Amino acid sequence: MIHYSGSYTDLYELTMAQVYFLNSFEKNRAVFDYFFRKLPFQGGYAVFAGLETLLEAVEDFRFCPDDCAYLLDQGFNARFVDYLKDFRFNGTIYSPMEGDLVFPDRPVLQVQGNIIETQMIETLLLNILNFQTLIATKARRIWSVAAGKKLVDFGLRRAQGPGGYYATRAAMIGGFDASSNVKAGLDFHIPVSGTMAHSFIQSYPDELTAFREYARCYPQNCILLLDTYDTLKSGLPLAIQVAKEMEKRGERLKGIRLDSGDLAWLSKACRKRLDAAGLDYVQIAVSNQLDETIVKSLVEQDAPVDLLGIGTSLVTGAPDAALDGVYKLTEFMGQPRIKLSESLSKITLPHQKQVYRLVDKSGSYLGAEMIALRNENPQNVYRMHHIFEPDKSMIIKSFRKEPLLQKVMEGGKRLYPPKTVQEIRETSLKQFQRLPGEYKRFINPHIYKIGISDSLKEIRDTLIYTAEGER
Amino acid sequence: MIHYSGSYTDLYELTMAQVYFLNSFEKNRAVFDYFFRKLPFQGGYAVFAGLETLLEAVEDFRFCPDDCAYLLDQGFNARFVDYLKDFRFNGTIYSPMEGDLVFPDRPVLQVQGNIIETQMIETLLLNILNFQTLIATKARRIWSVAAGKKLVDFGLRRAQGPGGYYATRAAMIGGFDASSNVKAGLDFHIPVSGTMAHSFIQSYPDELTAFREYARCYPQNCILLLDTYDTLKSGLPLAIQVAKEMEKRGERLKGIRLDSGDLAWLSKACRKRLDAAGLDYVQIAVSNQLDETIVKSLVEQDAPVDLLGIGTSLVTGAPDAALDGVYKLTEFMGQPRIKLSESLSKITLPHQKQVYRLVDKSGSYLGAEMIALRNENPQNVYRMHHIFEPDKSMIIKSFRKEPLLQKVMEGGKRLYPPKTVQEIRETSLKQFQRLPGEYKRFINPHIYKIGISDSLKEIRDTLIYTAEGER
Repeated sequence: MIHYSGSYTDLYELTMAQVYFLNSFEKNRAVFDYFFRKLPFQGGYAVFAGLETLLEAVEDFRFCPDDCAYLLDQGFNARFVDYLKDFRFNGTIYSPMEGDLVFPDRPVLQVQGNIIETQMIETLLLNILNFQTLIATKARRIWSVAAGKKLVDFGLRRAQGPGGYYATRAAMIGGFDASSNVKAGLDFHIPVSGTMAHSFIQSYPDELTAFREYARCYPQNCILLLDTYDTLKSGLPLAIQVAKEMEKRGERLKGIRLDSGDLAWLSKACRKRLDAAGLDYVQIAVSNQLDETIVKSLVEQDAPVDLLGIGTSLVTGAPDAALDGVYKLTEFMGQPRIKLSESLSKITLPHQKQVYRLVDKSGSYLGAEMIALRNENPQNVYRMHHIFEPDKSMIIKSFRKEPLLQKVMEGGKRLYPPKTVQEIRETSLKQFQRLPGEYKRFINPHIYKIGISDSLKEIRDTLIYTAEGER
Repeated sequence: MIHYSGSYTDLYELTMAQVYFLNSFEKNRAVFDYFFRKLPFQGGYAVFAGLETLLEAVEDFRFCPDDCAYLLDQGFNARFVDYLKDFRFNGTIYSPMEGDLVFPDRPVLQVQGNIIETQMIETLLLNILNFQTLIATKARRIWSVAAGKKLVDFGLRRAQGPGGYYATRAAMIGGFDASSNVKAGLDFHIPVSGTMAHSFIQSYPDELTAFREYARCYPQNCILLLDTYDTLKSGLPLAIQVAKEMEKRGERLKGIRLDSGDLAWLSKACRKRLDAAGLDYVQIAVSNQLDETIVKSLVEQDAPVDLLGIGTSLVTGAPDAALDGVYKLTEFMGQPRIKLSESLSKITLPHQKQVYRLVDKSGSYLGAEMIALRNENPQNVYRMHHIFEPDKSMIIKSFRKEPLLQKVMEGGKRLYPPKTVQEIRETSLKQFQRLPGEYKRFINPHIYKIGISDSLKEIRDTLIYTAEGER
C-alpha cells in the first residue's frame, strides 16, 4: 500500500549526501548504530518490530524520475542528481531478530556501507523502526495483562493516518490475535475480524430486525452489538431471543459486544443471563477506549470477557506516541567516532559492536546484556562496566552470552527469505517467556542492565579524554 | 504516495454492507454526521484539516481485483463482491472549508447517499480527518505562541510511520512555514528545509573542515550545526571563522543551529558573540524535543531565536495522539435517527443540519455556534438551547449567522478544483484572527458555546421520550 521512494526522507540526508558526493566520499566506509534512550510506557522492555518492512523498503529504495526532477528544481547539482538516478543501497545490516526484546542505550541495529548510502537511509529506518517498535511494545504490554483473552486491533479509525497500516502489523507481533484492518489483513496475512456499528441497528425499523438480518447473513460468525438503545433492557434480551431462534436452525450465536458503560459490571450481568438462558457458549466481546490499565482492571475483577477490541491507545501508542530512537555514526573509514555531550548518557559508543545477552543455566535471561567490540571473543570478557556510571561493574564470567545482532542484509540484499508476521509473533512470544517476571512487571519493573566490555570502555574513554584535551 | 484501495477499511463496514446489499438496501438514503466530543491539548479550538485528502480518496475509492479476491476468500458472497467491483461513492458531502475552526459536539461534516456508500467510507473518513485535524490543531497551538518565528517541521523520523506524510501537510495548514519532509514537499508544494546531522561533522577530520565543505557547497543556504563537540568552545568560534571566510567570498552564512543544552541561554550567548563579530545577519535555529510549552517559554525569555525546528510532539500530536472523531447515522430513509445513551452528551443529533457561526457587528466571532435543521431559516431562530443542559438557553436574534457547511461533493464528484496547502493555510490563519483571544488562550480558554434551535431540540427530545417509552 505504501510506496517508499527516495524522496521519503528528510532534506538534510540529501544536502549532506551532495557534499559527500562532491567531496568524492562514495567509497568512504561508515558504520551507524540505531538505538533509543528511553523505554516507552514506563515499562521494563521494548519489542523490536519493523525489520521486514525496513529490509523490503531498503531493497526497493530508489529515486524515481519525479524525485530527481524535483531535486533539480530545488537547486541540487545535476551531477549529483544523475548519481541518485542509479543510487541503490549496497550496504550491510546487522539486526536482532524481529520480535526480540530490546533495551535502551545498546545498539539495536547496525548499518555499514559507504557514507552516502548509510546516511541516506536514516530517515526511512527511523520512521519505520521507531513506530513499529513502539506499537509492538504497547501491544505486548496489553497482551501481558490480558490473561489469554483474545485481543483484536480496532484502531484504524483513530490511527495516525496510514500509520494504522503498520500499527496493525506491529500489534500482531506484540501479541494481538486479529484486526479490523482489512488491508493489513490482506497484505500481512492477519486474521480479520469485525461485525457491526450502531448505525447498522439504526438502519432497521427495530433492533430485533437488525439482529435477525445479521444472524441470517452470518450464521457462523454473528456477534451482536447490544448498546444502541439499552444494553440490558433491550440489546441483551433480543440477542437471547435471536440466539434461541438460531439454535432452532442448528446455528449458534457467536457472541455479543458491549461498547459503552461499566464493562466489568455489564459483562457479569450479561454472562449470568446468557448462562441462565442456556447460552454459555455465547462469547462476550468488549470495546470502548480500552488500554492496558483497563484490561488489567477487567482481568482483576474477573470480568467474564472473551474478546477485547482495542483501538486508539494501541495504534497510537498514547500517551508516549513515539519511540525516541536515533541513528548515530560510530565509525568512519575504520576510525571510531563519538558524539560528545555534557552528559555521559548522551555520548555514543564507537566502532562496530556485538551485543550479548546473558543467560543463566536454566536458559532464562539474567536481565543483562554486554556490549563488546565485534571482533572481541565474548568468552574472554569476564566483567562488564556500567555504561554510564564509571565505578560500577559486574562479573559475568559464568554466564552464557547469546549474540543478538545477526547479519540480515549484505551488499544491499537480504540474507534470508521474508518471515511472516505470524512466525515473528510466535517466536517473539516464546522468547518473552525467558525474561523473568520482574522485568515484565506492569509498574516499576526491574531495570535491565546494559554493560560494556573493558576494551570498548577503554576506546570510548580515550576518545572522550582526547577530545576534551583538544578543547 | 499513499494509495487507498477499498480494503483500506475496517472489516465491519463490509460485513454491514453485505447485509444491506442482500436486503436490497442499495437505494435507501442515509445521512451521517462526523463530529468529535473533546478538544485536544486542553485547548479552546480545533483546526479542521484533511478535506482535500478525503475528497481525493473518496473520488478514487474502489475495490481492486486483489481486494475482491481477498473478500471472496474471506467468505463474502460472490454476488456482493461482484457489486463491489463496480462500487463507487456517488454521494454528497457537506463540509466547512479546510482550515476552518471546529468545535466539539457539532457536526463537522455531513455525508449523504445510499446506506452502503455512506457507511463504506466511514473508516477512510475518520482515518484521514481525525489525524490531520489533530496535527493542524497542534501546529496552530505552536504557531499561536511562536511570535512570528519561522516554524519548521522536523518530524518524519519520529512520526507514526507514513502518518508523517500527512502530518506535514496538516502542520502547514496549522501555520508551519516549511518541512524537512521531501516527499510532502514534492506532493504538496511545501517549502523544504534541512541542513546537516552530527554525523556530517564526524565524517570530516575536524569540525572546521566539515563546516567549510558545507559552506562551499551551499553558499546561499548554509546553516551550521554547532553542538557536535562543544557549542560555545568549538562550534560557535569555528562557525564565526567560516562566516568571515564566506564574507571574503562575498557570501553570507545563513545561520547556526543549536540542538542540545539550554537553548534560551545558548541562543543568547551565541547572538551576543555573533553580533560582536559583526554577524548580526546570521540567524539562530534551535531544535531538540520542542513543543508549544517550550516554544512559549523561549519567547517569554526573549531567546533570540529565528527558526524553530519541531518534530515528535508536532507530528504525533503527543500527548493526545488522537482526535476522538466519530461518524454517526442521523437520518435513514428520511426519518431522523438517534443513538441513545445514559449520558445526554453521548446522544446524537438527528436529521440533516446546518451549523451557523454567530458573528458580531465588527466581524469578530462571538464564540458561539447554533445548529439548526438544514431547512430552517436561521433568521427565524431567535434563541438557541444548550446542547446538553436542558435549562440553559441564549438569545441570538441580533447576531449575524454564517453558515459553515457547504456542499463540496455531489454525486461522488467534487464541486470545486483542489485547493493548495498554501491557500488553505492563508485563509485559515486569516480567519483565526476573528476568534477572540480568550478562546485562543493557552491555558483554561473560554468554552465556545454550541447550541441547538427550538425545532432541532424538539425533534431530538421527542425521539428520546419515544424511545424511553418503548423500553
